[in-house]
Amino acid sequence: MTGNSRLSGVFAPVLTPMQSDLSPDPERLAAHCRWLLADGCHGLVLFGTTSEANSLSIDERIELLEAVVAAGLAPAKLIVGTGLCAIPDTVRLTRHAVELGCAGVLVLPPFYYKGVSDEGLFGAYREIIERVGDQRLRLYLYHIPKISGVAITPGLIERLLESYGGQVSGVKDSSGDWSNTSALLSGFPGFGTFTGTEETLLATLRGGGAGCITATANANAAAIRRLYDAWRTPEADALQERVKAVRRAVQVKPLIPALKRILARLDDDDGWLNLRPPLVALSDAEAGELFADLDAAGFAPLKAEPRAQAAV
Amino acid sequence: MTGNSRLSGVFAPVLTPMQSDLSPDPERLAAHCRWLLADGCHGLVLFGTTSEANSLSIDERIELLEAVVAAGLAPAKLIVGTGLCAIPDTVRLTRHAVELGCAGVLVLPPFYYKGVSDEGLFGAYREIIERVGDQRLRLYLYHIPKISGVAITPGLIERLLESYGGQVSGVKDSSGDWSNTSALLSGFPGFGTFTGTEETLLATLRGGGAGCITATANANAAAIRRLYDAWRTPEADALQERVKAVRRAVQVKPLIPALKRILARLDDDDGWLNLRPPLVALSDAEAGELFADLDAAGFAPLKAEPRAQAAV
Repeated sequence: MTGNSRLSGVFAPVLTPMQSDLSPDPERLAAHCRWLLADGCHGLVLFGTTSEANSLSIDERIELLEAVVAAGLAPAKLIVGTGLCAIPDTVRLTRHAVELGCAGVLVLPPFYYKGVSDEGLFGAYREIIERVGDQRLRLYLYHIPKISGVAITPGLIERLLESYGGQVSGVKDSSGDWSNTSALLSGFPGFGTFTGTEETLLATLRGGGAGCITATANANAAAIRRLYDAWRTPEADALQERVKAVRRAVQVKPLIPALKRILARLDDDDGWLNLRPPLVALSDAEAGELFADLDAAGFAPLKAEPRAQAAV
Repeated sequence: MTGNSRLSGVFAPVLTPMQSDLSPDPERLAAHCRWLLADGCHGLVLFGTTSEANSLSIDERIELLEAVVAAGLAPAKLIVGTGLCAIPDTVRLTRHAVELGCAGVLVLPPFYYKGVSDEGLFGAYREIIERVGDQRLRLYLYHIPKISGVAITPGLIERLLESYGGQVSGVKDSSGDWSNTSALLSGFPGFGTFTGTEETLLATLRGGGAGCITATANANAAAIRRLYDAWRTPEADALQERVKAVRRAVQVKPLIPALKRILARLDDDDGWLNLRPPLVALSDAEAGELFADLDAAGFAPLKAEPRAQAAV
């Protein structure tokens, strides 16, 4: 698990562009993916929380993944979010991603029932892994309790590693709670622990973690990558402070609408403003505050060139 | 909306029997449905929380509903749970239920994202109603915030009634908070308000509500029906106390596993013990406590005769 195949680096959970009728737009999605890789991402998560994945139907997810791969995105750079409430649906999406050769899957626990036991969650992941039944599976656990309402505890991870250590490869910690990330890093050395926010990227790397999977990389990948590449250098702390300031400017607003608003400006394309309910776009007043806060945080993405190249 | 077509009475959210490989068992489901109607239910909710609906795949739900209707259950007695996180999936299930002639649909709000606005939830229900585009639609809103994490507020109901009063027909209030049910009853007279627990059935009926949709009706429908039929009589309060005592004996345990354990005893069929993860079966010790508490509460379902008849 600490071999060359372990995923690491800066990953963006890719925003899903939608048309005005709220259908997803595979061509713009593929273009955005290309730009994110050009802008510094080591890899991409298709269908994370930021992707509005849980607002997409199962068929839409399958079609979008196939479209992105057909457009030339290397499956080896893709982690695919596949965790749904119902095990058969999760198995279907997971098997599809594995068979396409994707590097990994990011799997939410079944998130409808609350207060479920580690025993029950172990059973759910066991069913998923056994039913997929493929040694190529690289499964990343998705801990985002404020949204999913269901936590991935250290005890659960320990049990899964005992039974499925070859396949359970890491965790995305989107708790926003450094004490939890820190406990994962010290409790599971060599496990692929990704922080869910670049605010703690430097501390994660210093603790032996794999990197970050962060929403803000949709707009600020180059700066986050610079920090990643420089984490052992004297300038690391200053770079960390800079990306933290940008993150904070974004996350005081609803994160997904804010990021789509930023992309609309970067691309000069109001199509980015489309969101599926229950999410709603920022008001113009909120957007004004967001852009003022971003200016104050020194947000200056080098967008024109790589984005133009990526669109070719 | 207050006409003859308004649904009312005692409804059970039907437990889903599963085989040992965790696949759902359509024949036992149909038999259980028949027994619940024979035992006193006015109608049934297929695919409520108690049905482990969110542990079933979309395809499984479609197949099970078709199997139950093919087995002779009248669609006019069925409300179908169709609310998923992704609007296209909810639309697909809702359209399917409406086209089969089901009496109504019970629709969770999209429940992945938390802290969403009434504006966003209105948008979600608007998309569902408009895309289904069928005047036969009778949509019941599903308020179960402790599990879904997303509330149906009076403000949202008001807005939906203004725009879609012919189709938005009622609400299931599973908050367990009488002050909320009471506010719905006084705020929306004539609206189909169902309480999610028979503990407040009498108060709901006195307040002009439509009845109850309650998990415990899977085992105790006859007694709940007796209360419903007698609610204007002097014995109503005593009947209310009796069903309340049974409910309390059950709900100190995890509700769905407890009900499946009770059904396993009533039917002398351990197949009822199968549950999909993340839910887990009661331990024998917990089951012992449950049955002792039920005895103390005077739980005595008249099971042998109607269940045997229903199985024919």
